[in-house]
Amino acid sequence: MTEMKTDAKLDQLCINTIRFLSLDMVDRAKSGHPGTPMGAADFVYTLWDRFLKHNPNNPKWADRDRFVLSPGHASALLYSLLHLTGYDLSMNELRRFRQWGSKTPGHPEYGLTPGVSATTGPLGQGFANGIGMALAENWLGEHYNRPNHNIVDHFTYAVVSDGDMQEGVTSEAASLAGTLRLGKLVYLYDSNEVQIEGSTKMAFRENVARRFKAYGWHVVGPIRGDDVPAVDRAIREGQAETERPSLIICKTIIGHYSPIQGTSKAHSDPFDKEEIRETKAALGWPQHPSFYVPKEALSHLREAISRGEDAEKEWNRCFEGYALEYPELAQRFKAQMGGEPSPRWDEGLDGLFPAETEPTATRDASGKILNALVQRIPGLTGGSADLGPSTKSYLVGYGNFGFQEHYGRNIHFGVREHAMGAIAGGMSLHGGILPYTATFLTFSDYMRPPMRLAAMMRIRVVYVFTHDSIGLGQDGPTHQPVEHLMGLRGVPNLTVIRPADATETTEAWRAAILDVRGPTALIFSRQKLPVIDRTRYSPAKGLRRGGYVLWQSKAMDPDVILIGTGSEVQIALDAGESLADKDGYKVRVVSLPSWELFDAQPLKYRESVLPSSVRARVAVEAGITIGWERYVGLDGAAIGMNRFGASAPAEILYEKFGITAERVAEAARQLVQRDGGDA
Amino acid sequence: MTEMKTDAKLDQLCINTIRFLSLDMVDRAKSGHPGTPMGAADFVYTLWDRFLKHNPNNPKWADRDRFVLSPGHASALLYSLLHLTGYDLSMNELRRFRQWGSKTPGHPEYGLTPGVSATTGPLGQGFANGIGMALAENWLGEHYNRPNHNIVDHFTYAVVSDGDMQEGVTSEAASLAGTLRLGKLVYLYDSNEVQIEGSTKMAFRENVARRFKAYGWHVVGPIRGDDVPAVDRAIREGQAETERPSLIICKTIIGHYSPIQGTSKAHSDPFDKEEIRETKAALGWPQHPSFYVPKEALSHLREAISRGEDAEKEWNRCFEGYALEYPELAQRFKAQMGGEPSPRWDEGLDGLFPAETEPTATRDASGKILNALVQRIPGLTGGSADLGPSTKSYLVGYGNFGFQEHYGRNIHFGVREHAMGAIAGGMSLHGGILPYTATFLTFSDYMRPPMRLAAMMRIRVVYVFTHDSIGLGQDGPTHQPVEHLMGLRGVPNLTVIRPADATETTEAWRAAILDVRGPTALIFSRQKLPVIDRTRYSPAKGLRRGGYVLWQSKAMDPDVILIGTGSEVQIALDAGESLADKDGYKVRVVSLPSWELFDAQPLKYRESVLPSSVRARVAVEAGITIGWERYVGLDGAAIGMNRFGASAPAEILYEKFGITAERVAEAARQLVQRDGGDA
Repeated sequence: MTEMKTDAKLDQLCINTIRFLSLDMVDRAKSGHPGTPMGAADFVYTLWDRFLKHNPNNPKWADRDRFVLSPGHASALLYSLLHLTGYDLSMNELRRFRQWGSKTPGHPEYGLTPGVSATTGPLGQGFANGIGMALAENWLGEHYNRPNHNIVDHFTYAVVSDGDMQEGVTSEAASLAGTLRLGKLVYLYDSNEVQIEGSTKMAFRENVARRFKAYGWHVVGPIRGDDVPAVDRAIREGQAETERPSLIICKTIIGHYSPIQGTSKAHSDPFDKEEIRETKAALGWPQHPSFYVPKEALSHLREAISRGEDAEKEWNRCFEGYALEYPELAQRFKAQMGGEPSPRWDEGLDGLFPAETEPTATRDASGKILNALVQRIPGLTGGSADLGPSTKSYLVGYGNFGFQEHYGRNIHFGVREHAMGAIAGGMSLHGGILPYTATFLTFSDYMRPPMRLAAMMRIRVVYVFTHDSIGLGQDGPTHQPVEHLMGLRGVPNLTVIRPADATETTEAWRAAILDVRGPTALIFSRQKLPVIDRTRYSPAKGLRRGGYVLWQSKAMDPDVILIGTGSEVQIALDAGESLADKDGYKVRVVSLPSWELFDAQPLKYRESVLPSSVRARVAVEAGITIGWERYVGLDGAAIGMNRFGASAPAEILYEKFGITAERVAEAARQLVQRDGGDA
Repeated sequence: MTEMKTDAKLDQLCINTIRFLSLDMVDRAKSGHPGTPMGAADFVYTLWDRFLKHNPNNPKWADRDRFVLSPGHASALLYSLLHLTGYDLSMNELRRFRQWGSKTPGHPEYGLTPGVSATTGPLGQGFANGIGMALAENWLGEHYNRPNHNIVDHFTYAVVSDGDMQEGVTSEAASLAGTLRLGKLVYLYDSNEVQIEGSTKMAFRENVARRFKAYGWHVVGPIRGDDVPAVDRAIREGQAETERPSLIICKTIIGHYSPIQGTSKAHSDPFDKEEIRETKAALGWPQHPSFYVPKEALSHLREAISRGEDAEKEWNRCFEGYALEYPELAQRFKAQMGGEPSPRWDEGLDGLFPAETEPTATRDASGKILNALVQRIPGLTGGSADLGPSTKSYLVGYGNFGFQEHYGRNIHFGVREHAMGAIAGGMSLHGGILPYTATFLTFSDYMRPPMRLAAMMRIRVVYVFTHDSIGLGQDGPTHQPVEHLMGLRGVPNLTVIRPADATETTEAWRAAILDVRGPTALIFSRQKLPVIDRTRYSPAKGLRRGGYVLWQSKAMDPDVILIGTGSEVQIALDAGESLADKDGYKVRVVSLPSWELFDAQPLKYRESVLPSSVRARVAVEAGITIGWERYVGLDGAAIGMNRFGASAPAEILYEKFGITAERVAEAARQLVQRDGGDA
């Protein structure tokens, strides 16, 4: 009894240490969000102290529990915990909260700070990332665990907030998690009922417990978030429930113990001096020094190191036993978790589309390639937001990851593009999986937030987008992307590739698989496109450099350069051949499937493709022209779609909107004549 | 008894007429989605025949019921109903389904087809649009109805689908509708449990009824969607419930009565000849001619015309009585519903920011302007996705539209950017409201789909986006937009304006209010910006032309032109003055707040601002540079952010990322020296 009391005291000491470290960080930066750390410290501490399986000395340990702080604005809470439990995050870093070059930015950043499992901040994203992590854990377990050898066996925890609960991506992900029965998920909902504009009641009166039960979740609580034994019991209940994901509703008070507790003022403004003084006084905390860490608290929290090392050692022992019994599996698991390329992964790709191949939509070519790749890349898994048949993204013969069984490699995301993007991000963050997603290009708008985060984190996800222009035809303007391709090109670190035909599609997939520096968006046509005869034109491997001279009428410097991407390369080729044949121009046709890859080439190569001296340049792409001036300048012409499309057969739309070889040729003639071309 | 039977027979005849018209449309186009019209015809007919208050001869009647077909791919169903009930949509148009120039495009398009209340297709959008319509109805009723004079009193109906239910925007909008108690909303959920990839059960096992009850909705059913009397009763129940929105769950069979009924094949592929034959046979429908409309069916359905005219006449009578008693209100109501500009709407705007004004963040300036505008524009209403205090978008003294009362003009959307965008669209579609939304620019990513649709429909919504660059500082890269500004510029019909200071902010709001051709995005800074002294520099009304010469060192042709937007205009000015003073260059500084407005100017004006002959041009903007080549060409320089930001104070970020007057001046020097400038 005495010991329990003492334990409870120590718990409180640790919790208050976390509280005040967080408060002092925000105070020192004069910027940040103190409210959530003050309110949520108790239950997050309980999770970390009693349950979280992690090794601060090896934040990359494959079988660690995953922990996501979805309300990333509460970053100070996470940094406090990371520092106190012994991660490589010094007190000096805590003091440099939100400063240039520190490891303690305003919102947690994956890759920057050891122990941060996901970049969070935009609400809802972390919630859905966690679902992806749990899915990956389950998937890997099904593929690699063997009787008495559970080498993949960890929980995924997240702290989620009132704001997360309001975001649609959360609803999508939660509904899917219920459907897929991701039982090893335990989420702690910090329900403080305060947001920036005031009480959540102004905008959010739903019954969250009922809603999550409707999704098929196991709901625990509401409990008091500052009742350590209750939180302990609740997490145990969550762990014990293996069929359904668990949501533990923790009632908390934002800015707890401060004079402004329970108000929106406590959410996002640093406390003033007097508020800090009163808060410290209320909890009997010394006013000085700031960043005070009592020895007993540190020593207790740092036990995480030895616990973590023991746990990892134990796992290593298990893994050795597994490796003895299943050496091949063990080796593959290690390679897969390490993100190493699979041996001979691209075997069978070449020769898929010989010169005589019938015209092929690049979405169809992609489907063939994907189904070749899956045979050799064990972690390749993904699916579509209910457009599998249209996007040709189904892995034939590889089964479904569904309600009944978790071994299949096709994930049916449902009509949930946003969650698809965020879940794929979580799968990638977990490790061991190379996820892909698929939908129409126009619906990339639904999933921009997770794509942006994936790009920021430089994680690997392949986004397949088909139906890439007015070329989709009769579904009309709602379904015809116009601004999307250029919009994706604008996202830093995201590589966008729009191949011209089946052979470039092979190279596009190759580039996506090889690119370990970030996500890739692959842009495919719905309509059939001629397969470019590579015996007459330059080889498709030119795509690897982003852009290349596909054809040239004469060896010497051209009068005019025609540039196209995707389905419009054929239009450029037709125009070019006509200009050469009928007008006698020296013409060059450039295929420019990836701006990012091209712009990353040395100047010399770029000059060799687009010589500065040739200013008569015409670009053609069935999308907006903003941006094309990068390659055609003020003196060239860009032919595209600066308006929304229409509902009609594709060939009529190309005609009506003037995206034709004739128009390209006419524009070229005008430029050459202006420049006094000697044709 | 006999009559009832006869009625039931007539109902069936009408329902089958709708079915087969739809089927024949898809067959003729060899494109489209037959499954939903076949399955949902019964309950949609019941709604239209027995409940829907509308006047086919006046689709714009202010007090008509609103009807949204959220699964826009079922457009054939809507077109059949519009034709049969007497809208100006001829049989010839039905025969031209999905053809160039027809009024029957693949998905319903607002503004193109009489009786279409919203452009739908991207799932979830119609669901949320309807919430906005119901909100507008409620708002207008609260403002204009008087005892015994309910001049605003209609229902909002929607058909929603399994796919809609999976989209996050639906969850967001539904949760808010429950919170706001939008009782005059009656949604019919076509629950056929089939989607493109197969059974919905693969991805969607939640209990929808339970989920909607958790949101605070009134749920009726499940009922059989083809049981006309049951549907009739359910709609009555929905109408009778005035506190909560109603969801009627109609169980249906996709592709009902066809040999492929209940399968995903019936969803999106036209039936083949044999399938059509069998389906017609199954329902005893004549095989020929196609597009067959039995006289009794037509005559019954066309009764909608006289019913509608009577209803509108009755309403007109009521309105006359209202106008007698409340002439001023009546006049204002008419003007507001007609979208007419309010008298003296911009009084008080000028002079808000005299030259001596302290440096002011454009978000703060916007807040002042908005609070001036609201006093004179009665329909101006809106709110933020829980960032009211940060976006300065609160209408002080105008109350909240909330759970308790529906008169206020501030809407707390909650952390639901996506639904905010779509609900604002619905409010605009309803008429009578000029809605605005507000959030951080980085979160525009969450609301691109509804913004795109608003642009496509050319409806008026003002999107306020603050925290528009690294200038927001310490919140870091997740919150720092980089690609968003250019991404918005790419959306056709959307006007994007990023003012340089408080005075341009006034002009930006003016342009937004005056622009009746579509939505506007206003982009504001978090950080303070000097108020440009308009006695020394050109007046801010230059913004009306999108771009203008803000300052020039000498009257003659410049050696170099510096171009900036927003917070970077000051950087351009500083660089320009330094180049003029220290280097003796002839410098011009151009403020280019809106590309759309500028590009719409006559060539002569554009030439006067950016003469073709001057190729030494430097653009500066704290965002991606893709696109800036439009103005600086291949020979100029664009200084911006082609990477994600970082967490640090704003001024440090500007310095570290090189968005500084020094760097602009240096780039200018290089260009001038290259061009052999005679400075």
